[in-house]
Amino acid sequence: MALTTVTLLSDVGTRSELPGVLASIVRDIAPDAVVVHLSHDIDPHDVRAGSLALARAMGYVASGVMVAAVDPATDRPSIAVMVAGGAGILIGPDNGLLAPAVAMAGGAERAMLLTNDDLHLLSPGSLLIVRDVLVPVAAHLCAGVPFDLLGTEVDPGTLLPGVVPISRIDNAVLSAEVLWVDRFGNVQLNIGPDEIAEFGERVSLRFDGQTRTAVSVPTVIGLNDSQVALVPDPYGLVAVSLCRRSAAEELGLDVGTGVELSAAGTDRGVDTPVQLRR
Amino acid sequence: MALTTVTLLSDVGTRSELPGVLASIVRDIAPDAVVVHLSHDIDPHDVRAGSLALARAMGYVASGVMVAAVDPATDRPSIAVMVAGGAGILIGPDNGLLAPAVAMAGGAERAMLLTNDDLHLLSPGSLLIVRDVLVPVAAHLCAGVPFDLLGTEVDPGTLLPGVVPISRIDNAVLSAEVLWVDRFGNVQLNIGPDEIAEFGERVSLRFDGQTRTAVSVPTVIGLNDSQVALVPDPYGLVAVSLCRRSAAEELGLDVGTGVELSAAGTDRGVDTPVQLRR
Amino acid sequence: MALTTVTLLSDVGTRSELPGVLASIVRDIAPDAVVVHLSHDIDPHDVRAGSLALARAMGYVASGVMVAAVDPATDRPSIAVMVAGGAGILIGPDNGLLAPAVAMAGGAERAMLLTNDDLHLLSPGSLLIVRDVLVPVAAHLCAGVPFDLLGTEVDPGTLLPGVVPISRIDNAVLSAEVLWVDRFGNVQLNIGPDEIAEFGERVSLRFDGQTRTAVSVPTVIGLNDSQVALVPDPYGLVAVSLCRRSAAEELGLDVGTGVELSAAGTDRGVDTPVQLRR
Repeated sequence: MALTTVTLLSDVGTRSELPGVLASIVRDIAPDAVVVHLSHDIDPHDVRAGSLALARAMGYVASGVMVAAVDPATDRPSIAVMVAGGAGILIGPDNGLLAPAVAMAGGAERAMLLTNDDLHLLSPGSLLIVRDVLVPVAAHLCAGVPFDLLGTEVDPGTLLPGVVPISRIDNAVLSAEVLWVDRFGNVQLNIGPDEIAEFGERVSLRFDGQTRTAVSVPTVIGLNDSQVALVPDPYGLVAVSLCRRSAAEELGLDVGTGVELSAAGTDRGVDTPVQLRR
Repeated sequence: MALTTVTLLSDVGTRSELPGVLASIVRDIAPDAVVVHLSHDIDPHDVRAGSLALARAMGYVASGVMVAAVDPATDRPSIAVMVAGGAGILIGPDNGLLAPAVAMAGGAERAMLLTNDDLHLLSPGSLLIVRDVLVPVAAHLCAGVPFDLLGTEVDPGTLLPGVVPISRIDNAVLSAEVLWVDRFGNVQLNIGPDEIAEFGERVSLRFDGQTRTAVSVPTVIGLNDSQVALVPDPYGLVAVSLCRRSAAEELGLDVGTGVELSAAGTDRGVDTPVQLRR
Repeated sequence: MALTTVTLLSDVGTRSELPGVLASIVRDIAPDAVVVHLSHDIDPHDVRAGSLALARAMGYVASGVMVAAVDPATDRPSIAVMVAGGAGILIGPDNGLLAPAVAMAGGAERAMLLTNDDLHLLSPGSLLIVRDVLVPVAAHLCAGVPFDLLGTEVDPGTLLPGVVPISRIDNAVLSAEVLWVDRFGNVQLNIGPDEIAEFGERVSLRFDGQTRTAVSVPTVIGLNDSQVALVPDPYGLVAVSLCRRSAAEELGLDVGTGVELSAAGTDRGVDTPVQLRR
């Protein structure tokens, strides 16, 4: 099966020339491959944010090779993971970054340590793993080098697992966590819509010592300014959202914040009124 | 006529993986189409900024399909607009975003509501219009799906008009507005060079309670530090500019600021001296 | 030799539509050429940063045409420089921007002033050099227009030299300068590893009135929080680095800062302890 697309995700930033250098390396080794840049603006070293972005993209990425490079310069080895009968190969550091995406693609079928340095580039200085190892290997795969030649095969079960937190329910209180805040201030939680269905339309949110009551609705469109919503988000999870304003900014929610959800009952109790910041 | 290019403009931001997800969707549905990213850093919900960027690009964009997605998640429908005998098709929300670009391309010849959901993607959660509707439809057009199959045809005359302000002249005073500030601090006004020709070389600018005298010149090159210039800009409009410094920052001009222009006469009157901020 | 890739570097910024407009121009004039974007986020007018980014990329850029546009709107002419027997052509302003990259490619073999305006685009307003001259000329080269037709040939020896500072050694003190700070806070100096070899493992750094002792090591991995390292960087130069923290932020080093290096000897003397900022 020919691999013709290299999809890239990294934390190298777009102020440097590296995103284009990575594309140039592919163009040089595999002139017919197409490069798709997911993002190079993952926060430096933020493996969790990178793994979530890769997992969100996974259902859309074209078959081929995906390279993810967030915090690769550690003592964790570089790996390639085969998924979906060889339709996809994920390449990155074995630091948990690839794990959620691999799981979404049905799990790892084979895994290789990238120890064959005939497929790497010689650095003019010290090793820059994404430039000298990960992307050259991806390009060589597109140029026809078989998976077997990448290096040393390892048991996929020995790879580092992902870092995505899971929710838990205890005494009718669901303990969740903020996974991601998008550019519009929607606050994605690590829970699905079915996990809050039993709470009914009014759901109590506790975080950072505050309590809010949110309405659980299909969409924020039509809500008024004082209504905090829990909505199904475009990724199959639940988000805390406001209508055309940033829920993250208004409520002070950020990645990693713990949020406890429970049925709000019929009284509005000790709810804090929403303060518009502007 | 084969459509082989998909040109994208959005407010989804480059810190998320969405720009690459959109390119991946095109690659999956129409493997031979080429994707060109104009920008994904339009300010969230800023329909006016998006429409101006699209209009500025319009004279250069390759024939094919243009997708613009700024604030698409409203109750306005998604549309496709045919221009230039089918050489171009613009896709986006019917919120005025496309209107200036459509006008620049000679006006809408046909328009369709994107109601044929056979051409949309199924979301894992709630609908993300740019990902689930606009870009898949664009890709299907490149893959050969005819315009007629996109949905329900509508009269182009019923589409929402654009939001670009127009200047007016009254008693030899021209009332203009700042349309855009570029990365170098050049302040683009919504007026053409011929509208200020009659004012001569020295033009009085009033804004935010201040008065400045600008020189109307072909270029800022060679001006000294105390000279504010009115120059023809690269888009056919007039900009307030300084030589190698940001006029926006020095003068406190921003998008939407109203500026009144008139002939400055021969005395320098109440001009405020330029204060260099650094 | 066919030129099939246009590689772009500029300071136009990704918030504007210009990066995509430049790609569209190439697609229009040379439909089969592939566009690679190195970066468009070079600081406005920062010729030195642009020339360094281009030089860092030079060993990786695919053969073809490179366009670099940082501060092109001056009275310096636009030029094309042929390198490597015609495998590469660099296009940009004659302001020193191209010089380090040209040197890395073995030096200029021929140079042309871009005076043939049949190959330029007509602006709707004033000239925007990157859009109206540099990129259209690059695209025409890919479309088969010979180098000889670009304009007026000039002696490569008359081109403006680059602006990269060089180090000097005096009385066993090496005077260096910060060239670049990457996204991770690594501080690249304008010196190679062999220039500090004689100082041994402990090297004294003086800058901005402070003195620090750095350890000269192959990698920061495994260093503790109080250790400042001098390491070979991935570009063949020496960087001041900390393990997983920003050396630039912790030490207050920025582009252009002068740093004096010398052997630290065996006592730790007047070293300032590292203050962790967070």
